[in-house]
Amino acid sequence: MAKKEKYALGVDLGGTYIKLGIVSASGRIKKKLSVDTKVNEGPAKIISQIKKGIKELLNKNKLNIQGIGIGSPGVVTVKKGIVENPPNFPGWGKVNLGRIIEKEFKMRVHVENDANAAAIGEMIFGAGRRIDSFIMITLGTGVGGGIILKRKLYRGEFGAAGEIGHITINHKGLKCNCGSYGCIETYAGNNYLISRVKEQLKQNRDSVLWNEADPDLSSLSPRVISEAVDAGDIFALSVVNDLGEYLGAAFASVSNLLDVSTFIIGGGVAGFGEPLFESIERTVKERVLTPLSPRVKVKAAKLKNDAGIKGASALVFYKS
Amino acid sequence: MAKKEKYALGVDLGGTYIKLGIVSASGRIKKKLSVDTKVNEGPAKIISQIKKGIKELLNKNKLNIQGIGIGSPGVVTVKKGIVENPPNFPGWGKVNLGRIIEKEFKMRVHVENDANAAAIGEMIFGAGRRIDSFIMITLGTGVGGGIILKRKLYRGEFGAAGEIGHITINHKGLKCNCGSYGCIETYAGNNYLISRVKEQLKQNRDSVLWNEADPDLSSLSPRVISEAVDAGDIFALSVVNDLGEYLGAAFASVSNLLDVSTFIIGGGVAGFGEPLFESIERTVKERVLTPLSPRVKVKAAKLKNDAGIKGASALVFYKS
Repeated sequence: MAKKEKYALGVDLGGTYIKLGIVSASGRIKKKLSVDTKVNEGPAKIISQIKKGIKELLNKNKLNIQGIGIGSPGVVTVKKGIVENPPNFPGWGKVNLGRIIEKEFKMRVHVENDANAAAIGEMIFGAGRRIDSFIMITLGTGVGGGIILKRKLYRGEFGAAGEIGHITINHKGLKCNCGSYGCIETYAGNNYLISRVKEQLKQNRDSVLWNEADPDLSSLSPRVISEAVDAGDIFALSVVNDLGEYLGAAFASVSNLLDVSTFIIGGGVAGFGEPLFESIERTVKERVLTPLSPRVKVKAAKLKNDAGIKGASALVFYKS
Repeated sequence: MAKKEKYALGVDLGGTYIKLGIVSASGRIKKKLSVDTKVNEGPAKIISQIKKGIKELLNKNKLNIQGIGIGSPGVVTVKKGIVENPPNFPGWGKVNLGRIIEKEFKMRVHVENDANAAAIGEMIFGAGRRIDSFIMITLGTGVGGGIILKRKLYRGEFGAAGEIGHITINHKGLKCNCGSYGCIETYAGNNYLISRVKEQLKQNRDSVLWNEADPDLSSLSPRVISEAVDAGDIFALSVVNDLGEYLGAAFASVSNLLDVSTFIIGGGVAGFGEPLFESIERTVKERVLTPLSPRVKVKAAKLKNDAGIKGASALVFYKS
C-alpha cells in the first residue's frame, strides 16, 4: 500500500539553509531534514550540500519517488534547469543545477524560481487547490509573487513574470532596492515596514510597541507588531490596516489588468492574520472596477513552515 | 483574382457614429461608410442602424467576405456575442448582438470589446504583426488596453482583462471616474490632461499655449498642445514629457508583472509622437527590473483613422 503512493523529493534552496523533504502526492511530509547552504564557500560546495541532503533523504527509503523538485532564488530557465545569479550567492553565475542533480540521482529534476514554486505549492497542496486562477504573494524581506492562470503558472516572455513586489503604488515614493520608486515592496517589505513603524512610533508613545528602555526599537519585528495587534493596541492595528491598504492598492491594479480576483498571501507578515486580510480585501473591493468587486477574495496561504519544501515537491506533481 | 482574396466586414460601434468597412486580409479598406448611431433612440434603433450600414456595404459586392467583426464598447461575452451596458448607450442592458447580426446576414459574426479589437487589429494588420507578446494602449478620453500574449488576446477570468487605464500610479492621487484613486487614466485621459495643463498654465504664461484673449483656455486640446511642441514650446514639451513619465510608471508595473516588454500606443494623445514615446520608453527602462530593461520597446500604433474598422475586421481573420 505505502509503496503505491506517489512521492516527490522537494529541495528548498535558501541562503542559509537547504531544507529538504519527501512529500506525498497528497502533501504530507514523510521525512525532512535541513543542511547548511555554506553559501560563502561557492557554488561547488553548495551543490555538494544539496547532494548530501538528497542522499541522506533517499537513504534506505523504499518510497515510490517520482522526481526531485528544487525551488531556488534567482532567475531560473525552467526547461533547462539553469539557475542564474541568486541574490546573495557569491560567485554563482549560471549553474545548470537541473542537469547536475539529474545526473547524480538518475531522476527527473524540476527547477523553478522559489516564488513560483510557492504558487505551484498552493495550487497543488494548499489554498489554491480548487481555484482556477489566482495570484500568490509571499510577504517577507521582499514581496514575491506568482501568477496562476487556468491552473498553469504564467511565466511571461523570459520567465521573469510575477514580480508583484515591483508594482508601484506611488510613482514618486521611496526609492526601492530595484532602482524604481514607490514599489509595493517599499511599503510591505519587512525592513521598510519596520523602519516606517519606528518612525511613526515617535508620535505614538502610548502604544505598547514603544519601549522606553530600547529607544532604538531594535527588537521591533513583524511578530512583535502582531502580538500588539492581538493585545488590542490601536497603533499596531493601524499599522496593519495601513499595510492592507497599500497591498490592496497594488492588488487592485493587478486585478484590473488581469481580471484575476483571488489573492493568496503567505510569508512572515501574513502572520498579521485576519486584520491584514480584511484590510486588503476591503481595499481591493473598493478600488477595483465595479464588475470585479464582488468576486475579490483574499486568502491566507495554507502551506506554512514547510511551504518551501512542499512548493518544491509540488513541481514534480505539477509537471507529471 | 479579386474574388479569391479574402475580406472581412468590420463594424466599429461608437456612441456617435457606426463606422463600417470591407477590409482585405492584408488590411486594405476596399469600401467604407459611416451611419449615425442614434444612441438616444434605444437599442432597437441602434441595431437597425448597424443592419442598415452592413446592408449598404454588402450591396452589389462580389467580394469573398469571410465574416463580420464588431468592436463594441462595454463588456462583451465573446463566445456568445453578448454586449452588456456600453457606457453612454441608454437603455441597452444586455443584447445578444452577435446572434442578431448572424441571423440577419447568415454570416459568422465575431463581437469583441473595442479596446481588445484594437489590440487584435495591431497584431493582425499593424505594429504588432511580428511581435509575439505586447500591450496595446489606446489614449483618448479614457485609457484603454489590450494584452496579447503569444499571439493570443488575454481575456482573463470573465473577459474583463486589460484595463490598463485603471492601474494606479499614486494610491492617494486624484479620484478616478472608476471610483478608485490615482489611476493612470487620471493622468493621461484627455479631460484630466487638459484640466491639469490649464492649471499649470497659470504659472507658465510665457508658453504659446497661454491665450490672453481666452483665459478659460476653452480651445485647449491635445492637438493644440502637440502643435506647441512642434513649435518648440518648452512648457508644452514638459507637459508631454510628464505624461510620458506617468505612463511609463504604469507600464513598468505591467512589465514587472507580466514580463512583456513591448507597448504599442494608439489614440489621439499618441499624436504627441516621438517626444511622448521617448519619454515613456526612457521611464519604463529606468523603472523596470534590470533584466527587463534592455528589451523595453514603445511603438506607435500603425492603424490610425480607420483603426476601429480594421480592428473589427481583424477579429474575423484572427478567429478563422
